[in-house]
Amino acid sequence: MIREREQLMQQLMELLRREKKSDIAVLISQYQPADIAEILTELETHYRGTVFQLLSRETAAMVLEELEVLDESVIFNLVESLGAKYLADIINEMASDDAADLLGRLPQETREIILELMQHEEAVDVQELLEYDVQSAGGIMTTEYVAIRKDITAGRAIDVLREIAPEAETVYYVYVVDVKNKLVGVITLRELIVANPHALIESIMHRKVISVTVDMDQEEVARVVSKYNFLAVPVVDKDNSLLGIITVDDVIDVIYEEASEDIYLLGGSTELSDQDQSIMAKALKSRLPWLFITMLEGLIAGTVLRGLERELSAVVALAFFIPLLTGMGGNVGTQSATIAVRGLAVGQIDTGDVFRVAARETLTGITLGLINGLIVAVIAALWQNSFVLGVIVGLAMLGNMTTAALMGTLVPIAFKKWGIDPAVASAPFITASIDITGLLIYSTLASFLIGFLL
Amino acid sequence: MIREREQLMQQLMELLRREKKSDIAVLISQYQPADIAEILTELETHYRGTVFQLLSRETAAMVLEELEVLDESVIFNLVESLGAKYLADIINEMASDDAADLLGRLPQETREIILELMQHEEAVDVQELLEYDVQSAGGIMTTEYVAIRKDITAGRAIDVLREIAPEAETVYYVYVVDVKNKLVGVITLRELIVANPHALIESIMHRKVISVTVDMDQEEVARVVSKYNFLAVPVVDKDNSLLGIITVDDVIDVIYEEASEDIYLLGGSTELSDQDQSIMAKALKSRLPWLFITMLEGLIAGTVLRGLERELSAVVALAFFIPLLTGMGGNVGTQSATIAVRGLAVGQIDTGDVFRVAARETLTGITLGLINGLIVAVIAALWQNSFVLGVIVGLAMLGNMTTAALMGTLVPIAFKKWGIDPAVASAPFITASIDITGLLIYSTLASFLIGFLL
Repeated sequence: MIREREQLMQQLMELLRREKKSDIAVLISQYQPADIAEILTELETHYRGTVFQLLSRETAAMVLEELEVLDESVIFNLVESLGAKYLADIINEMASDDAADLLGRLPQETREIILELMQHEEAVDVQELLEYDVQSAGGIMTTEYVAIRKDITAGRAIDVLREIAPEAETVYYVYVVDVKNKLVGVITLRELIVANPHALIESIMHRKVISVTVDMDQEEVARVVSKYNFLAVPVVDKDNSLLGIITVDDVIDVIYEEASEDIYLLGGSTELSDQDQSIMAKALKSRLPWLFITMLEGLIAGTVLRGLERELSAVVALAFFIPLLTGMGGNVGTQSATIAVRGLAVGQIDTGDVFRVAARETLTGITLGLINGLIVAVIAALWQNSFVLGVIVGLAMLGNMTTAALMGTLVPIAFKKWGIDPAVASAPFITASIDITGLLIYSTLASFLIGFLL
Repeated sequence: MIREREQLMQQLMELLRREKKSDIAVLISQYQPADIAEILTELETHYRGTVFQLLSRETAAMVLEELEVLDESVIFNLVESLGAKYLADIINEMASDDAADLLGRLPQETREIILELMQHEEAVDVQELLEYDVQSAGGIMTTEYVAIRKDITAGRAIDVLREIAPEAETVYYVYVVDVKNKLVGVITLRELIVANPHALIESIMHRKVISVTVDMDQEEVARVVSKYNFLAVPVVDKDNSLLGIITVDDVIDVIYEEASEDIYLLGGSTELSDQDQSIMAKALKSRLPWLFITMLEGLIAGTVLRGLERELSAVVALAFFIPLLTGMGGNVGTQSATIAVRGLAVGQIDTGDVFRVAARETLTGITLGLINGLIVAVIAALWQNSFVLGVIVGLAMLGNMTTAALMGTLVPIAFKKWGIDPAVASAPFITASIDITGLLIYSTLASFLIGFLL
């Protein structure tokens, strides 16, 4: 596969140097839009416009849809080398949701120029879509759906589909609307082709239509589509008027995007870090803020330990258990936070569940604390030949794990309730807070029990 | 939505108590299979069989497909209360991939009884599917695809579709095969309905078919379907013979499953932790092994610190910076590991990239180490009024962050190369190893430079 790609690139470069445009067009036409987009990205900047111009309008539109996901700098190249009018003509051909996504990423000035140059009807559609929150159903829906009236026949419906098939994002679901554009039914193309051609849509359509509202969060939309195995879901407003549809390919992008976002936040960095060294600045920007939070909390932890100065100088062995306590507390806290974040993301937990979930996690924390506390108590006592040190470390472990499990669960749920992405309550944030409380517990226990050590 | 569900459950319980079977059938028929599956899960055990028996065979099959995702204990209930023959009849109606998934989860004895009772042809299909690795293309494909010959007309192809529509998993892609069942083309239903009914398939089909091989990893399959925005992808063997198809709904399940798996492993627990307290044992089982690893490494870290005993008793302040050093090193390591794990999962990094990626991350680690090392050096020097302590802490931070970034990157890539899920190289594993190396660096620096402190 990789070798095949290399060969293709060599062949293409050769043809570009010899300016064999018709050969290039033939070569490129054998590939899927997603592949052509990748090829464009790999090409030298000044060749991109040449190749793009050789694509048919329909293909060019589909390639632009794919490019948008890959690398926006390629799009800037194309705007520069081909001009806004050329792009505007192709954006006219794009699905409205992809056109809106694309334009939404361009600088405002370029966006307005292109919108001016587009067909009026398309431009209006796209401008409306641009106004929705990008993370909402409105932000990912397309207006190219197929809607029919309920008083036509199945045969006529297929004729309608034939006419609008080239325009529509999907023809596999046909939505049925009344005169006020309210959604009253749905029928699949599969059902239409097996139906008697003379049957009225009204008599064969499904009346219970599952839809999403235009302001629903995209994560929730993805859950609906996934739960019902839909290929698309209709988007309606408060009055059940049909505004658009969201297709399964966009849902897949949402699932990948949300999972990546959660994974990065849990790992303590904010965004996707790309491959090139050139984006070092971007990497630092996404990672440094989390490190500064950790630094602040590390210094607080140091201050807590300073309160233990007298005990530490008397019993240096107390210091040996600091990494053990913070490491294990951090682990329990991260586990609980992960379970809470994922539970909230896939809809297993909702913010109303707080008491039940907190009780369960506290119990888990106590159990884990008892098991691990007992083990480390025995080890500490034997290793340092001190029963009291064993008691201090063991009790600290119990207290630490219980609070860690509770904090790891409550912080993400609280964040969700306050409208913050719960994955922000991520590894560094949770572990650092747990370090501080764990050391407070340890210091307190040590200063109370130290008399028995000396 | 939740209130609606509660009302439904009350209504249903009332009807069940009064044994109004036909009313129950009418009520339940208004819901989607995914909803009926949820309702069954919420129902008291002894009512599940009653409700399930009221479903049509087709609906019952779709409900079973959904149940399989939700809670396998419900399926055991149904086997017990309705008997294996009843289930076998319904499993006959299921898509072969879902039937295989379902049977794969049942105890071997039950599975064999049901396979005996199923229609021969279906049972053979399912048994073949059961032999593929569950994480491979073969493990998620279905054999209910639509395949035609290239020498028929578009009109005839639609007639074929009409006949097999009720059986096929999707009718939206029609695959074209030769006499030896080799995949030679594909055409969408959308293209078929707009085509001239007299056109030969051969003249309108796509000849470049993107397919996956039967042994391809399911994560890779998901990437192909997502990249090309497919509704299904054909599965072929080495000789390009068509074996089955994988539909987009199954791909969505794979993406959720793989993302969850990575998230849990990165968070340091192995599997999905359910809601109930009753599964406490399961929670402990998935979390304790990771805690024991952390414990072992915490004890090693303690041993490392023991080597610093003399220095610690002389300069207790050295202990104050332990949480800061381990916390920040752990953070950098987790960030790097997250980026590596996600990069490997979405295909941005492959194991051949090791030098390029390692070089980049080392550079990032050094940069982060210089910035943070300088800051903490100044803080440490001012706070403890000791220039040398500042130098020790600052240098330790630099060394710690550089090795943390490098280890965080290399360990997941190495795991991938050895065929282990890279997400296993997860937060607790990475942070604990980084704790140890970080403390080794700190101890070494401290013991060399301590002379200047005293």
